[in-house]
Amino acid sequence: MDATPTIRPALAADDDAIWAILEPTFRAGETYPIPRDITRADALRYWRADGNDVFVAEQDGAIVGSYYLRANNRGGGAHVANGGYVVASGATGRGVARAMCMDSLTRAGARGFTAMQFNFVIASNERAVRLWQSCGFAIVGRLPQAFQHPRLGYVDAYVMVRTL
Amino acid sequence: MDATPTIRPALAADDDAIWAILEPTFRAGETYPIPRDITRADALRYWRADGNDVFVAEQDGAIVGSYYLRANNRGGGAHVANGGYVVASGATGRGVARAMCMDSLTRAGARGFTAMQFNFVIASNERAVRLWQSCGFAIVGRLPQAFQHPRLGYVDAYVMVRTL
Repeated sequence: MDATPTIRPALAADDDAIWAILEPTFRAGETYPIPRDITRADALRYWRADGNDVFVAEQDGAIVGSYYLRANNRGGGAHVANGGYVVASGATGRGVARAMCMDSLTRAGARGFTAMQFNFVIASNERAVRLWQSCGFAIVGRLPQAFQHPRLGYVDAYVMVRTL
Repeated sequence: MDATPTIRPALAADDDAIWAILEPTFRAGETYPIPRDITRADALRYWRADGNDVFVAEQDGAIVGSYYLRANNRGGGAHVANGGYVVASGATGRGVARAMCMDSLTRAGARGFTAMQFNFVIASNERAVRLWQSCGFAIVGRLPQAFQHPRLGYVDAYVMVRTL
């Protein structure tokens, strides 16, 4: 098994592979504020929204993750980046999310962004919170009861920021 | 002069009046993360984006303010509302923003939202910060240097929340 995933810009032909990762993530409804019954077309519109640069992570010839990089705001807020990341359910624990995050930080810096902000990290997703912290992100805000988790009920969400 | 503005849903015919308020606000670039050279069409698309309910405040027969009310997120985050408010430059200090905020809180509660969140209150906009605090909002996050102010340079922005 490849130790480190290869990350490259997503092609139109990658839509099936991206949806195959997004679908179980969104259906589970535990990590993104996205309707659990979202359609393939709506999910891909969200992931590939105007202004999003989309990438995929490959390992052993398979697409095992995807992320998008964008400006978090326009105008006077356009110097702060934002990213979203998903990992295939069979590929967790292999460093895919960390590799994508580090790749996004490098690309964001190269594009001139001075910070990266995550707007809505769900507190019950403890593995993600720890991972982002280990990538240099700090919790700068706590949104009380901002997410309705399908098993846990209302849980907090965090705003996390890292300077570049 | 009317003591309290009258607030009603915006009609298509109100676009000129809304733009007349948005234009100097966005051109100044001190309070919203919006390009200062935004066009009328783009600004109205932003203000009247899908999912936004738009209202106007009238005082003495003139439109002196506008706000939008929307869900801040989808799916598991759809129970938290978001609003944006602008006041005509000649109508500040007359309670227009407060009246719109209180109206939006009432409408948000009636629609079943359990909280209202402001994602990006620019810290140098001290009058707004104090106003939202007096309307029951608390600062729950601080986004360091998240906004490039045209006169002050990089300033912080706040995330503010109020339960309903």
